[in-house]
Amino acid sequence: MDPIAYVNGSFVPLSEAKVSILDRGFLFADGIYEVSAVLDGKLIDNASHLARLQRSLGEIALELPESLERIEEIQKELIARNELTNGTVYLEVTRGADRGRDFAFPKGVRPTLIMFTSAKDIINAPSAKTGVAVITVPDIRWTRRDIKSVALLAQVLAKQAAAEAGAGEAWMIENGLVTEGGSSSAFILTQDDVLVTRHNSNEILPGCTRKAVLKLAEERQLRVEERPFSIAEALSAKEAFATSASLFVQAVISIDGKPVGTGNPGPMTQRLREIYVEFARATAV
Amino acid sequence: MDPIAYVNGSFVPLSEAKVSILDRGFLFADGIYEVSAVLDGKLIDNASHLARLQRSLGEIALELPESLERIEEIQKELIARNELTNGTVYLEVTRGADRGRDFAFPKGVRPTLIMFTSAKDIINAPSAKTGVAVITVPDIRWTRRDIKSVALLAQVLAKQAAAEAGAGEAWMIENGLVTEGGSSSAFILTQDDVLVTRHNSNEILPGCTRKAVLKLAEERQLRVEERPFSIAEALSAKEAFATSASLFVQAVISIDGKPVGTGNPGPMTQRLREIYVEFARATAV
Repeated sequence: MDPIAYVNGSFVPLSEAKVSILDRGFLFADGIYEVSAVLDGKLIDNASHLARLQRSLGEIALELPESLERIEEIQKELIARNELTNGTVYLEVTRGADRGRDFAFPKGVRPTLIMFTSAKDIINAPSAKTGVAVITVPDIRWTRRDIKSVALLAQVLAKQAAAEAGAGEAWMIENGLVTEGGSSSAFILTQDDVLVTRHNSNEILPGCTRKAVLKLAEERQLRVEERPFSIAEALSAKEAFATSASLFVQAVISIDGKPVGTGNPGPMTQRLREIYVEFARATAV
Repeated sequence: MDPIAYVNGSFVPLSEAKVSILDRGFLFADGIYEVSAVLDGKLIDNASHLARLQRSLGEIALELPESLERIEEIQKELIARNELTNGTVYLEVTRGADRGRDFAFPKGVRPTLIMFTSAKDIINAPSAKTGVAVITVPDIRWTRRDIKSVALLAQVLAKQAAAEAGAGEAWMIENGLVTEGGSSSAFILTQDDVLVTRHNSNEILPGCTRKAVLKLAEERQLRVEERPFSIAEALSAKEAFATSASLFVQAVISIDGKPVGTGNPGPMTQRLREIYVEFARATAV
């Protein structure tokens, strides 16, 4: 079955969903994206994703192509048209297609807005039970990682290295400290039961799930420290996990082949996953 | 008139030249590009561009979608179909369109190859006579700038800052030294008549025009030093200029509002431009 995608005002079969080869998303990575999870046909933590979309667009001086309300309407219509129960909605905004291919912003060009859905049983992904192995790679990205742009080639290479090593994620290392995963935020739980994840800055993406998990943990009186940590500290931690919109909370059971904690998903990780999923369902729209 | 573009084996009107929204060039900046100049209907220094294409593709483990010979045939056919006399041929190779949107490389997916031409009187561009003003910006790019990928958002922002300042190029600064321009290589001619441009490394793109100009200069017994230089050194130089496939050799007359040399295009810059254009025409294919 050919799913339905959204391209600049039209709902079209995904096989026919196309953009111009002049689109600046294709030529310059001049675009921003977001991925929202869908559970039981409803959007998870979507206001947070749309707020980040607006912020990222602002950072590259690109206007919203539609109001946030309208974007959410389109997301919902796409979910309905695809009868999507569980999975993700991907959306991307670019600076549009211009004949000139000038690096500087073109004038009078309409931004591109596209969306598509992917069906996936994200709640019951096997790795949710087993956890994933992580490898480390140098963080070779640009310095504005807070912008959720489609300039993702460094992350592609990091996650390909992970895949080739049989791992599920690559943790990127800068100056001896973990920045984040190729497509997830990195957390550890210390032996003293302190939840540690890197503070937000230009050095990492401000993860929506990261933010929600921190808030949920603090509400439950868990001690939280937002600061960098090293691989040595992660390997001496009780537990480690990754968060992302489509993974929720996923145990990290080893780093570069060395076990974290018992080498199995830890109880706090499992508990935080349950708490997050509960929050997700309760606040879904 | 609608020009003709090339998309995966077909010559199509540019207005209909499209790629899937699932194309990894559009979703991940997972692609490589090259721009070759065209003079009198012939490709300039094209072997150098195709060699760099092959090298960049290799660095991201992406295979050539066609042989280099076949790619050049397509470039030539596109020039002929568009009756292009002067301008550029843009080509891009991406890792193709895959349903999964996994960061790691998809299996069994055909790479995308697209090309389009732009008509432009590049020989007589006004800035060839007047030179351009340059501003400086921090170099915020990733650490693999030797790969000519379409992950160009940092360069887009740099060149937009230049445009807003009324300048023609942005020189990117790292650790107090110039790396290169947003879309050109940076050169100075010292008071001792030494031509200086940064050495090739992961920190800059190995410019094809840069390489040709260096060779031509050395053949004419000009002293050449491949090493970084600072803005202070550039401002105390006799001349400064930029090279790129579509600019050839272009004088830089000021940096952040301060004049370089006399504040006019220098004689060596003009001479190197003539020598390069002569070489270009003599070796065009």
